[in-house]
Amino acid sequence: MTSALDGFLADYPVTVEIPVQWGDMDALQHVNNIVYLKWFESARIEYLQRIKFWSRMETERLGPILASQTVKYRAPVEYPDTIIAGAKAASFDDGQIVHSYAVFSKQKGLVATTGEARLVMYDFGQQKKTNIPDDVLALLTKLES
Amino acid sequence: MTSALDGFLADYPVTVEIPVQWGDMDALQHVNNIVYLKWFESARIEYLQRIKFWSRMETERLGPILASQTVKYRAPVEYPDTIIAGAKAASFDDGQIVHSYAVFSKQKGLVATTGEARLVMYDFGQQKKTNIPDDVLALLTKLES
Amino acid sequence: MTSALDGFLADYPVTVEIPVQWGDMDALQHVNNIVYLKWFESARIEYLQRIKFWSRMETERLGPILASQTVKYRAPVEYPDTIIAGAKAASFDDGQIVHSYAVFSKQKGLVATTGEARLVMYDFGQQKKTNIPDDVLALLTKLES
Amino acid sequence: MTSALDGFLADYPVTVEIPVQWGDMDALQHVNNIVYLKWFESARIEYLQRIKFWSRMETERLGPILASQTVKYRAPVEYPDTIIAGAKAASFDDGQIVHSYAVFSKQKGLVATTGEARLVMYDFGQQKKTNIPDDVLALLTKLES
Repeated sequence: MTSALDGFLADYPVTVEIPVQWGDMDALQHVNNIVYLKWFESARIEYLQRIKFWSRMETERLGPILASQTVKYRAPVEYPDTIIAGAKAASFDDGQIVHSYAVFSKQKGLVATTGEARLVMYDFGQQKKTNIPDDVLALLTKLES
Repeated sequence: MTSALDGFLADYPVTVEIPVQWGDMDALQHVNNIVYLKWFESARIEYLQRIKFWSRMETERLGPILASQTVKYRAPVEYPDTIIAGAKAASFDDGQIVHSYAVFSKQKGLVATTGEARLVMYDFGQQKKTNIPDDVLALLTKLES
Repeated sequence: MTSALDGFLADYPVTVEIPVQWGDMDALQHVNNIVYLKWFESARIEYLQRIKFWSRMETERLGPILASQTVKYRAPVEYPDTIIAGAKAASFDDGQIVHSYAVFSKQKGLVATTGEARLVMYDFGQQKKTNIPDDVLALLTKLES
Repeated sequence: MTSALDGFLADYPVTVEIPVQWGDMDALQHVNNIVYLKWFESARIEYLQRIKFWSRMETERLGPILASQTVKYRAPVEYPDTIIAGAKAASFDDGQIVHSYAVFSKQKGLVATTGEARLVMYDFGQQKKTNIPDDVLALLTKLES
């Protein structure tokens, strides 16, 4: 029998484990709503490093722009807990990736938050949208297969 | 002739003005994506205080739960700048408010970010969804008219 | 031969391990100066839970007030890295604890930051300074011996 | 008769006014201890811009390194409030500035927090300590006189 956590880990090719810090909570005594999006970001950067995309900013001034995101709060998270933030591609094409994120609470054994983000590929030198480099696209396809 | 700022202020019944802090920027040298949602929150709390809703938490354990939100990043914001975060009701009924938010950059003279949030009314004593109190609904209707 | 990390772990009775998040960095592309103090706080709360002090706030309205702190920045920390924040009592008496903190960078193999904080025991019901409860003091003494 | 605020403003040559955001508070329902240091930073950067020092980083890779800081918490700050963060030089020489900071609560009419920071001048190109440029030192001397 697979646990909720096993299912979560199988569903997201990239995950990062992060302890909840006491200072992540707000005056309502649970983790503040923006912290979940910081955790999404941590999963996103890890994902972009895994497909060797993040480093293209320095070498070629190519990089993803965060165009939009959404978040659904399903269950509150409190300190003490440890969360796992997962990222996967919901869809992608030559010019963009749509990421799905989720935050799993180890204490509660459930997915506390889900979300999506649209990343548009941008050429910062030429200041216009561009295509995802072929080798990045190949690594992305492999990671998601 | 109305300026972009005048139009913005006329469009949002509740606004808060906040200077961008240098520490709001991330390693890409513009304001980090989660800070915009903190500014949305600041406009949201101000709005909820204006309709005398925020104080019901203490007296009656009634309060809004943030169920979901979305954000669109239109233009980056950098330090130094001062932003104005605006909130208005996109829609509402007996049990929920859908808020629209926007962040206006005074430096750039444009709307840098927009978003929405769904707030569901909750009875924390009885642990179930409930209706917005009538007097809060009356103040909300008046604020939005 | 003991490593720098072994020495660190032996020196601090309470430690917490935290991955550096990309969003912890500021526009100078290293971890922002206030994040180290959040890590100190994480070690502090863990310490106060270990000596069963943190829970006295709810039951008796007794708790520590953070009166002051200091921090020395010895080496910058960048993403990706994982840090260990350690806490120990530099001194304590009936009415206060002086904590020593340090942040160890696993990537760099060195102590990146050190600091101290003075915690004064306070009776929030009577609104005055008070003594540390005897059983807390006993646990503290045992933890530090 | 001068008010506490007038006295504060007269005492600090550089000040920035910042509204307290609801999200600045932690689970103890007052502003979290690290937020005061973010406000110190905001006053510090404003100060460094006023003496045309901040821009030297880009043009000459010269800049201040934050070597250490201290903070004393005198009174808690809560939302809603507006604070003024002030910065002045406690002392300075050819190679460093020691800054004094204070946070004034407009709601409470008092200084809530004070602190100091030591800024050491650094040549990032040559990777060693260096002297403060003469024109910066002249502006600093004028600002503090």
